[in-house]
Amino acid sequence: MGKPMAKNLLKAGHQLVVYDIVKESVEELVKTGAEAARNCRDAASKGSVIILMLPDSSDVKEVMVGDNGVLEGARPGSIIIDMSSIAPFVEIDLEKKARGRNVRMLDAPVSGGEPGAIQGTLSIMVGGDEKTFEEVKPILQALGTSVVLVGDIGAGQFTKLINQILVGIHLQAMSEALVFAKKAGLDVQKVYDAIKGGLAGSKVLDAKVPLVLKRNFKPGFRIELQIKDLKNAIETGREMGVPLPAASLSHAFFLACDAAGRSGLDHSALITVAEELAKIKVGEQPREPS
Amino acid sequence: MGKPMAKNLLKAGHQLVVYDIVKESVEELVKTGAEAARNCRDAASKGSVIILMLPDSSDVKEVMVGDNGVLEGARPGSIIIDMSSIAPFVEIDLEKKARGRNVRMLDAPVSGGEPGAIQGTLSIMVGGDEKTFEEVKPILQALGTSVVLVGDIGAGQFTKLINQILVGIHLQAMSEALVFAKKAGLDVQKVYDAIKGGLAGSKVLDAKVPLVLKRNFKPGFRIELQIKDLKNAIETGREMGVPLPAASLSHAFFLACDAAGRSGLDHSALITVAEELAKIKVGEQPREPS
Repeated sequence: MGKPMAKNLLKAGHQLVVYDIVKESVEELVKTGAEAARNCRDAASKGSVIILMLPDSSDVKEVMVGDNGVLEGARPGSIIIDMSSIAPFVEIDLEKKARGRNVRMLDAPVSGGEPGAIQGTLSIMVGGDEKTFEEVKPILQALGTSVVLVGDIGAGQFTKLINQILVGIHLQAMSEALVFAKKAGLDVQKVYDAIKGGLAGSKVLDAKVPLVLKRNFKPGFRIELQIKDLKNAIETGREMGVPLPAASLSHAFFLACDAAGRSGLDHSALITVAEELAKIKVGEQPREPS
Repeated sequence: MGKPMAKNLLKAGHQLVVYDIVKESVEELVKTGAEAARNCRDAASKGSVIILMLPDSSDVKEVMVGDNGVLEGARPGSIIIDMSSIAPFVEIDLEKKARGRNVRMLDAPVSGGEPGAIQGTLSIMVGGDEKTFEEVKPILQALGTSVVLVGDIGAGQFTKLINQILVGIHLQAMSEALVFAKKAGLDVQKVYDAIKGGLAGSKVLDAKVPLVLKRNFKPGFRIELQIKDLKNAIETGREMGVPLPAASLSHAFFLACDAAGRSGLDHSALITVAEELAKIKVGEQPREPS
């Protein structure tokens, strides 16, 4: 996600100092006009706004407070925007550490996946101080079409997890409903058309039913990321005293997908588990191109 | 449901012979121009189209094949439309019995609840023979705004169950998401506004979040009916070899609502179980009218 987002920032006229452990990504961005940093500390020391985009909580912790990390390099008064999707309580803790060094911090996880990152159409859910948010809003608007301050630090991450709780459970609902329809001998498209306008309708159905019927599980949003987000939701729920029974069930079936070697497929491939349990397939095998 | 539907048929100019075990309902319809029958057999013998609207499978079986039942009275060539929401395999079996007496049968369960029945805006999902469907379509159009033939006999019931699988699971998803948001200290309305346009969006959220925030659990669609539909879905799934883990989980939580004495509330009151598990309430108590 980081590389296409960096390209959009360059395109919008921002000066960029970049660092990544993948050398090829850095080289590609240098060719487009970015400056390469030696490490996170070096990158942080050269800007007033520092953007992180990393896989999970442990990566953000290491990059922030590890050796040669961002907090060693960041100048007082600078702003860190963590756009990774991680555990909210980790974010809240890191913001305290940043504040101790007079560095401000926002969390700003995104939805919209790699296509949204490339096209600059991400939805960005921000947590933090309103004044700081207004200061960096133009930067975020170069990356996404919806940029919303939801609450204090961590609120972006909480909102992202709520989004993923809903998406994960709605995908499980779709899986059970379509397999039930197919096994009953119904025309799945007709059933979908009959119910989509009513209370059963969802964005997941609208976006994924056509793809499932074509057996197109190209991501989109990969199962391994859905697993990470649901894991963070369940753990965060546990810390807050919020059991998440349906989200946990959906997490378990995503893990079954992973165990079957499908973690690189789009999250709509969750339906393959329901299909295997019912010994039936919804939709056709992909046809050979004619 | 039957009474307001009968009124819409009278309004559309149809002649009606009615029977119900609730005498008051029959009397009310007689005042509006209907003729009262002595029993189901009597009612069936007096019309060419026979409409049933009953609580569950056992009621439809009794009314169809019990003493003084519909099949004793129905003339050869007449058409039975069962608009109850019942188990599809019961419907398929009853249609065979009807066919044995040269009586045609459609299943045509509805969604849209009592408000839809009163306003004549039901969504009607029909299963059966296309020619028979075309013959009675004008009658159904006096009752609903969407009248769709989904497939053979039973297809209406299957589709209704698929609808309810989705609605039940989506309500559980909403419950977990809103309680998580509230416990995280977020503004639930803001979170909903931030995510509703994306992949997490659903008709359940759009229809129910405003009501939950106002603690308005007036039905709408009662929990006891949601329980019946999910029970029929789970049993039908079992007969077909389709396990429904998330629908079963949602069914279990609706039963918890029932155990707490809330089966007469709207199905969005499912959230009260998640609230109790997390020891928090989403939304305000209703304010006294000012």
